[in-house]
Amino acid sequence: MTPAHGANPLRDAADRRLPRIAGPSGLVIFGVTGDLSRKKLMPAVYDLANRGLLPPGFSLVGFARREWQDEDFAQEVHDAVKQHARTPFREEVWQQLIQGMRFVQGNFDDDDAFDQLRATIAELDKEQGTGGNFAFYLSVPPKFFPKVVKQLKKHGLADPQEGSWRRAVIEKPFGHDLTSAKELNALVHEVFDPEQVFRIDHYLGKETVQNILALRFANTLFEPVWNRSYVDHVQITMAEDIGIGGRAGYYDGIGAARDVIQNHLLQLLALTAMEEPSSFDADALAAEKTKVLSAVKLPQDLGADTVRGQYAAGWQGGEKVIGYLQEDGIDPRSKTDTFAAVKLEIDNRRWAGVPFYLRTGKRLGRRVTEIAVVFQRAPHSPFDQTATEELGHNALVIRVQPDEGVTMRFGSKVPGTSMEVRDVSMDFAYGESFTESSPEAYERLILDVLLGDSNLFPRTEEVELSWRILDPIEQYWDAHGTPAQYLSGTWGPAEADEMLARDGRSWRRP
Amino acid sequence: MTPAHGANPLRDAADRRLPRIAGPSGLVIFGVTGDLSRKKLMPAVYDLANRGLLPPGFSLVGFARREWQDEDFAQEVHDAVKQHARTPFREEVWQQLIQGMRFVQGNFDDDDAFDQLRATIAELDKEQGTGGNFAFYLSVPPKFFPKVVKQLKKHGLADPQEGSWRRAVIEKPFGHDLTSAKELNALVHEVFDPEQVFRIDHYLGKETVQNILALRFANTLFEPVWNRSYVDHVQITMAEDIGIGGRAGYYDGIGAARDVIQNHLLQLLALTAMEEPSSFDADALAAEKTKVLSAVKLPQDLGADTVRGQYAAGWQGGEKVIGYLQEDGIDPRSKTDTFAAVKLEIDNRRWAGVPFYLRTGKRLGRRVTEIAVVFQRAPHSPFDQTATEELGHNALVIRVQPDEGVTMRFGSKVPGTSMEVRDVSMDFAYGESFTESSPEAYERLILDVLLGDSNLFPRTEEVELSWRILDPIEQYWDAHGTPAQYLSGTWGPAEADEMLARDGRSWRRP
Repeated sequence: MTPAHGANPLRDAADRRLPRIAGPSGLVIFGVTGDLSRKKLMPAVYDLANRGLLPPGFSLVGFARREWQDEDFAQEVHDAVKQHARTPFREEVWQQLIQGMRFVQGNFDDDDAFDQLRATIAELDKEQGTGGNFAFYLSVPPKFFPKVVKQLKKHGLADPQEGSWRRAVIEKPFGHDLTSAKELNALVHEVFDPEQVFRIDHYLGKETVQNILALRFANTLFEPVWNRSYVDHVQITMAEDIGIGGRAGYYDGIGAARDVIQNHLLQLLALTAMEEPSSFDADALAAEKTKVLSAVKLPQDLGADTVRGQYAAGWQGGEKVIGYLQEDGIDPRSKTDTFAAVKLEIDNRRWAGVPFYLRTGKRLGRRVTEIAVVFQRAPHSPFDQTATEELGHNALVIRVQPDEGVTMRFGSKVPGTSMEVRDVSMDFAYGESFTESSPEAYERLILDVLLGDSNLFPRTEEVELSWRILDPIEQYWDAHGTPAQYLSGTWGPAEADEMLARDGRSWRRP
Repeated sequence: MTPAHGANPLRDAADRRLPRIAGPSGLVIFGVTGDLSRKKLMPAVYDLANRGLLPPGFSLVGFARREWQDEDFAQEVHDAVKQHARTPFREEVWQQLIQGMRFVQGNFDDDDAFDQLRATIAELDKEQGTGGNFAFYLSVPPKFFPKVVKQLKKHGLADPQEGSWRRAVIEKPFGHDLTSAKELNALVHEVFDPEQVFRIDHYLGKETVQNILALRFANTLFEPVWNRSYVDHVQITMAEDIGIGGRAGYYDGIGAARDVIQNHLLQLLALTAMEEPSSFDADALAAEKTKVLSAVKLPQDLGADTVRGQYAAGWQGGEKVIGYLQEDGIDPRSKTDTFAAVKLEIDNRRWAGVPFYLRTGKRLGRRVTEIAVVFQRAPHSPFDQTATEELGHNALVIRVQPDEGVTMRFGSKVPGTSMEVRDVSMDFAYGESFTESSPEAYERLILDVLLGDSNLFPRTEEVELSWRILDPIEQYWDAHGTPAQYLSGTWGPAEADEMLARDGRSWRRP
């Protein structure tokens, strides 16, 4: 890696103005025949190449059990790119990319296959000039993590030669509780140093999520009111309109809280609530996120301030849909949560007393992810009392997806009245304001891995702190009752509404 | 006037929810054949009637020299309404309105005519049930004010009977300097009590201007940053794209500063900068406006911090236009300003050190009135220095006209970059957010006069304080040089840009 692509490009003015281009390198994908690889990783690699952000000799190695030749693999990538890439297909880009494509056939406990992988890498170093720099993307079910990691170690693939690098990319779930997460981390760190490990939380690669930092810290307007003196509460929502689809095997026993709150929502909470870091290098950023996650306080009454639900049959998008317990492969007595809502507080000077309400669920009203910072009412209104009672709270809503952007709700005079005030909103839409189209999260994250830029990747401590928050909730749920049923297509069980109603608040209907 | 239409309807919840409807009353317009009457007053009366806000027996009396009968006057109103009214023409509304229309022919020193006016009013009280409640709208050149006011007194028209009211409405200019304003006020107040006098500044009737108060005081988000700790400076602009047109006789010798800054812009400044009043009744509001106007500090160096200009020939809207000195009826040696810009400061705890830049002019780039609150840059940016230098200041722009609404400028991350931040904006547009269409300023203001609601009318003290601010500037200009010439269609003389450049700032190009 040349100095121009150093670990902290944000602090390097020269680098910021030039596009950040990966140095000589390659990517090995384990589980290359899976959905994630086909729909996200292969297209992202092509899009990066098409944007000129990959080095000329960039290499892509697929590893799977499938009986493929290099050509079959290339054809597979070709089809995935044609179908899912964000940028137009250009033959010359493809022709260059295909030069570095290799396929290694094998099981994860097949030593020959790993030897062949090593040989392939050595060959690519020679033919493509990848310089020994390789990232291993573990796009495999978590139960295979230990095996793959150990094999990489055993076959000398984890340790870089002097002047080159090796990195491991792992996808959530990072364990299913604190204990298993610690075990996994211990195992990974037996083989890889902390700076070699990149945990993908693809939400953090989204432009709208990165924009939280720009919004808060590149402006004057927001930070002064971003605290307990002005904020009434914060709502972080990730709602899906789909059910579990074909993911029964993965999902059952995991549930919404582990699948979404533990990683995505707690990371969004950390970015929303953290103090300003001294810089945006990965260490400083991780330090602030860790600090705020350490300050998260669980509700005293877990029965009142957490809610879990399970979707029942209902109507969605004009179609009749079945309930969770009727889904293929789900135990009809399953207690897995497909909806989870929790109330957290942050025990520090900035946020003491300000609840952060997190919720996520499947088969909800519509697909939307947003962070809503809801402000207190004006402390006093010189206007007519009746008009004021109708007024909502001011709110700043960061729309993560879809319709990426920012909305501000505030009160404005109703035309033609003496002084009736009604809530209106101002909008900023990414799509309208920038000619630059937003890269897919995976483009950004894969490029960051190749650049060694770990800003957007949660660290061991963050993962463990998040489990520390979630564990007592899961334990409470295990010991108490079952998830409340909610109709598909609604916004979750009545208990979730009651939870906020007890605080005199209500969920936004985004 | 019934109690339901009391002097302070903002404080009366019942009244706010019902539309505010004027009680039994009539309006007498002096100078009814003039432009203002035809284009604004007559249509506003019709629109109010059409909205059901006038009492059934509402009466409209025209007074002018023209040899008209009631029918001629009614025809004139009819034509004006058809041409200029905001709401659709409805025959049944018109048929009701026409019942109360009368015309009185005469000169302002014609005693018979004023006697006839008194008889007409008495007759309307009987026939239309106007109950002796009449407002006299002096839509006449200021030189006639004294005469009309004295005649009203002499013929017993100024003094209401027990239980009824008489009011006088006067249009700017309220004098041409402090001395003349005081003389005029003294004269008016010999005849009318202060609460009987309504000074029209039609800008204050605009929805967007009233919304300044809603924006500031019905919300939580803005007040915390609405002060010297966060605001860098404020720009208040009223730009016209037209020249003086046929108004040479009125305009020459008056100029832009007297015509616009003394009233409209200083009122906008007062609403933007004032403290929160204890209530929105007229007294409390006037007290705050008076307080902030008293705190306005003139620049020490009037040569550096005021600019006046005069439009030269140029191109506007694709047409060649002549300069001010070539306009019909203008002395080619005239020193009248058609552009004026001043830097003011406000000597109080909230605003000390924050300049308020006011500018107005004719034949500028486009027609626009706006208040821009420009915030300081973020005190520190954890992002790349180079990116920050390109960032503008955050700004909240109240768009008074056209395109009524509010814009917020702030920095957002540029998609696809590591962390480049660029200015974007959020918009709120009246037209899109409310189905209610905005009434014309004159509708609101005439209704307020009939209701006796004086919130939106500047008082004697405000007018005199404004002249106290402007007088030294006009005196300095009289004694020093001539206005700088500027090309029609530009944004004023170079001196105006230099004035801000010396402070390290620049005018917005709205």
